[in-house]
Amino acid sequence: MKPYAKTDFPVSDVRRFLEPGPIVLVSSAWQGKANIMTMGWHMVMEFQPSLVGCYIWTENHSFDMVRRSKQCVINIPTVDLAAKVVDIGNSSGRHVDKFATFGLTPRRGTEVAAPLIEECYANFECQLVDSRLIKRYSLFVLEVVKAHVARSPRYPRTIHYRGDGVFMISGENTARWRGRFKGQML
Amino acid sequence: MKPYAKTDFPVSDVRRFLEPGPIVLVSSAWQGKANIMTMGWHMVMEFQPSLVGCYIWTENHSFDMVRRSKQCVINIPTVDLAAKVVDIGNSSGRHVDKFATFGLTPRRGTEVAAPLIEECYANFECQLVDSRLIKRYSLFVLEVVKAHVARSPRYPRTIHYRGDGVFMISGENTARWRGRFKGQML
Repeated sequence: MKPYAKTDFPVSDVRRFLEPGPIVLVSSAWQGKANIMTMGWHMVMEFQPSLVGCYIWTENHSFDMVRRSKQCVINIPTVDLAAKVVDIGNSSGRHVDKFATFGLTPRRGTEVAAPLIEECYANFECQLVDSRLIKRYSLFVLEVVKAHVARSPRYPRTIHYRGDGVFMISGENTARWRGRFKGQML
Repeated sequence: MKPYAKTDFPVSDVRRFLEPGPIVLVSSAWQGKANIMTMGWHMVMEFQPSLVGCYIWTENHSFDMVRRSKQCVINIPTVDLAAKVVDIGNSSGRHVDKFATFGLTPRRGTEVAAPLIEECYANFECQLVDSRLIKRYSLFVLEVVKAHVARSPRYPRTIHYRGDGVFMISGENTARWRGRFKGQML
């Protein structure tokens, strides 16, 4: 598949891609090694600063990499990458180089050392801004400090996990209810 | 539309409906009044206990109702309710009785005083189990203590918010990548 041509995107608007709830790939780097994990539990927490809460299980190799480097990239894969997303979730960075194994291309970001995944629709460079909830909830509070989003299509076909091996693929995008919104439309 | 016939559902499995990221309706009750809010920012935080993190803005009338009653119900609306979901998000419980105004039916739950919304596909009765993150992040950590889910369809057609008045409607559900999962399939 042709790589997505990306452009800078306002960090305060990344919720447009996260709030619908797609499975994402989190890439990280620490001590000369890079890794990727599949993540389904995340939420937008604020527009400005652009905060995202992410659950990273202690058993994930990425847990220590993100905690120690205090950085990562949230990448939005589209449905063409679904098989790789599953395989990434079923292997550990302790044993394999996931970029090499799954044929993904690391790209240098501008704000963090963690690599962007070129094949993804969007890449959000993140700083860990609050680590106090990691111990109790494995909750990483990240700030998106730089966003790169594909110029087209306007809306990506993302994959959403239903558990038990079942995915939902994002469907129709519609502004048909836009006229009902009053005042400030967030 | 015919009401959904619902049955008890394991609370540890509610992630199947929350993790894909739908817009939900949060119903609450306090001092003899009930309210409903539209919520897009939530995440699964744990299976057992069944924890869900929810962002409720301080300006929402529901903020104080959930904080004081320490209870609420997370309801999953399907696409047929989309116009009402928008209207609910555009009005305040300070001024209107949302159940009456929007023609929704409150049903009594078994574990909490907050009403279930009958017209929704699923209803998750929740207790507020951690209020320490409310001040800093408007983050309510809820435990789902009872779940009611429609017997059919197996997967609901949910609405997912992209911001700026645009919704994504959930599309195809597929187990086509299930064979790639190894070991424990969550």
